[in-house]
Amino acid sequence: MSSAAKCLPLTRSSVQAAHELIKPHVHRTPVIHSRTLDEFASRQQTPAELKGTPWEGTAERAAKPTVRLWIKCENLQRIGAFKARGAFHAVGRLVANEDWVAAGGRENGVATHSSGNHAQALALAARENGVPAHVVMPSISNPKKVEATKGYGAFVYESGSTAPERQELLDKVVADTGATFVPPYNHPDIILGQGTAALELQEQAAELIAEHAAKNPGSKPREGLDAIVTPCGGGGLLSGTALSCEGTGISVFAGEPSHQGADDLFRAIRAGLKAPIADVKTLTIADGLRTPVGEIPWSVIRGDRKLVRDAFTVTERDISKTLKFVLERLKVVVEPSAVVGLAVVLFNEEFRQLVEREGGKDGWDIGVIFTGGNVSLDDLPALLKIGEDEV
Amino acid sequence: MSSAAKCLPLTRSSVQAAHELIKPHVHRTPVIHSRTLDEFASRQQTPAELKGTPWEGTAERAAKPTVRLWIKCENLQRIGAFKARGAFHAVGRLVANEDWVAAGGRENGVATHSSGNHAQALALAARENGVPAHVVMPSISNPKKVEATKGYGAFVYESGSTAPERQELLDKVVADTGATFVPPYNHPDIILGQGTAALELQEQAAELIAEHAAKNPGSKPREGLDAIVTPCGGGGLLSGTALSCEGTGISVFAGEPSHQGADDLFRAIRAGLKAPIADVKTLTIADGLRTPVGEIPWSVIRGDRKLVRDAFTVTERDISKTLKFVLERLKVVVEPSAVVGLAVVLFNEEFRQLVEREGGKDGWDIGVIFTGGNVSLDDLPALLKIGEDEV
Repeated sequence: MSSAAKCLPLTRSSVQAAHELIKPHVHRTPVIHSRTLDEFASRQQTPAELKGTPWEGTAERAAKPTVRLWIKCENLQRIGAFKARGAFHAVGRLVANEDWVAAGGRENGVATHSSGNHAQALALAARENGVPAHVVMPSISNPKKVEATKGYGAFVYESGSTAPERQELLDKVVADTGATFVPPYNHPDIILGQGTAALELQEQAAELIAEHAAKNPGSKPREGLDAIVTPCGGGGLLSGTALSCEGTGISVFAGEPSHQGADDLFRAIRAGLKAPIADVKTLTIADGLRTPVGEIPWSVIRGDRKLVRDAFTVTERDISKTLKFVLERLKVVVEPSAVVGLAVVLFNEEFRQLVEREGGKDGWDIGVIFTGGNVSLDDLPALLKIGEDEV
Repeated sequence: MSSAAKCLPLTRSSVQAAHELIKPHVHRTPVIHSRTLDEFASRQQTPAELKGTPWEGTAERAAKPTVRLWIKCENLQRIGAFKARGAFHAVGRLVANEDWVAAGGRENGVATHSSGNHAQALALAARENGVPAHVVMPSISNPKKVEATKGYGAFVYESGSTAPERQELLDKVVADTGATFVPPYNHPDIILGQGTAALELQEQAAELIAEHAAKNPGSKPREGLDAIVTPCGGGGLLSGTALSCEGTGISVFAGEPSHQGADDLFRAIRAGLKAPIADVKTLTIADGLRTPVGEIPWSVIRGDRKLVRDAFTVTERDISKTLKFVLERLKVVVEPSAVVGLAVVLFNEEFRQLVEREGGKDGWDIGVIFTGGNVSLDDLPALLKIGEDEV
């Protein structure tokens, strides 16, 4: 990891520089569009759908926004998630750093702790850059993820499942090997790498939107996206997305699960806090979003810069319904965390009313990022049934 | 449907003309590539994998071809399958035909029989062209498919499940309504429309292959695909693909399930028959491929023109294994029929030996088409387990 002094400033042009560096290693994933989805997103929610939500009993005033959705499929990214971008950027910056190399960095390699996509991402980026990777994974991790991480050539160390146990083992691994810690989200190089997904989305959506407008005569000329909504866990993707949009006029919003307090960013924003909420313990099905927002992401998201306009929450049932729609109608495999941005657009009335109000008759072109597809097929049937018997 | 006299000739440039006509209505679906898949395809099959196949006991001579795969995701096409292309072309040609319009065609509409993707495709194409659609579906059809077809505004008629019952009801519907029959595959306009998928694949793959070669210095400059393998049921996609490749030097191959004689094209080719085998009764899990090859597709595939080089078969277990790989690693939702081309590349030793022989050290760039994604999520767990307890 680059020392702080060597880090690029957190700006849109640094995201562009990150993109140049990682381009040879990552897929330019497709952006998809579905008229069926647009119709579904643009219709009014029914009383039955609003039952049990904060908007129960207000169906006659439910929003009817005009929405066109442009979906960046990072589930089709290498290792099945956008995390490849941050890892390739962080490792790429390290190996380009002469001081790091002179100090034996290439031999000592990189290290991290992760039970999820960052583990595989760092293992792959390290392998392709010819440096060793050391990954601490809780012993309760999904065996397939452990297998995949080892498959990319990483050394895997099993830790206990609590944060202190994990940290202790990581510290020991770093001390023993001299490896450089590459954190999953709380670092400028990671943030800048993750921001490249939204940079591509902006370009790809602009092309598709121009084509779409040309095919629909009478519609107002549109130049690109009005907004991007991304899921928020540690905030790496969200802050990188916000940087990639700085100065473009595109509004950036966060989506979070409301389950058991996973909505730490939402609560911090609404309470006007000056620092992120550090203590988050949730078992939301969106397992990539169980972490609190990191301090460096926070400095971009809120802090002085406030590059993210607002955050919105969705229930476990919203996530499950969106997951089902995506698998059945959009035909891509996504993990629950991946659809939280889309779930906000489809089901959060506060967000939908904002789009109706600001988008007016012409509506909004909204970009969302399907962040990953690493879900076990064995778990899918249960994930698709959450809240099905409610209403 | 255009009368035969009004049909475009079955040539590559007619496929290009079809593409111009349908472009505003269909997605230019993405082409994906996976290094993990290339590695899997390029390794030698093990004795355990070959057990129970015609190549059992020959593992030491198993092929080790060098394969790079470029996958056209028509599962992400409108209605979830390439069939949208043929339907938009057939209906587009009708509404552009002054004689047809003058004879009341627009009011009388179009009709077909289908339990699958062609039903939804025709319903959608008719709706967008402002003509009614009449669709005969067997009463045993998947209720979701019936629902979707009605959802696109078609009139649905339930028939018995045998071919004569279906035909009788279709004849009656056509007589009553004056609608024009648009068959699922045995018509030039359908064939030309389906061929547009491979036309796009050729262009998209050529770009991606050039990029891929540039990222891998030392590799031989490659100009585009060496071969395309598509599934074959009625032969609409296969014959359209073959037309789209005529004169390009790209070899076209068919993939078929071997189960219960679904391999009618394979058998006809290997026996040197002069006409397609008409009688096919199979319950292969690749339910889109249960039909015999039609006569017009046959005239392109074999007949005098022989634009398809050869056909290869795969078992139900091969299809199931490929389905699992695609869902787990490539993160897209596909129906069993969709992966039959890829299954040939991964598991048919005869095909793999051909690639090894002709591709040599540089290997082959092979295009495959994921034809559709219309699978019920409830059926998936069983589909993924076929043959799992064998070996």
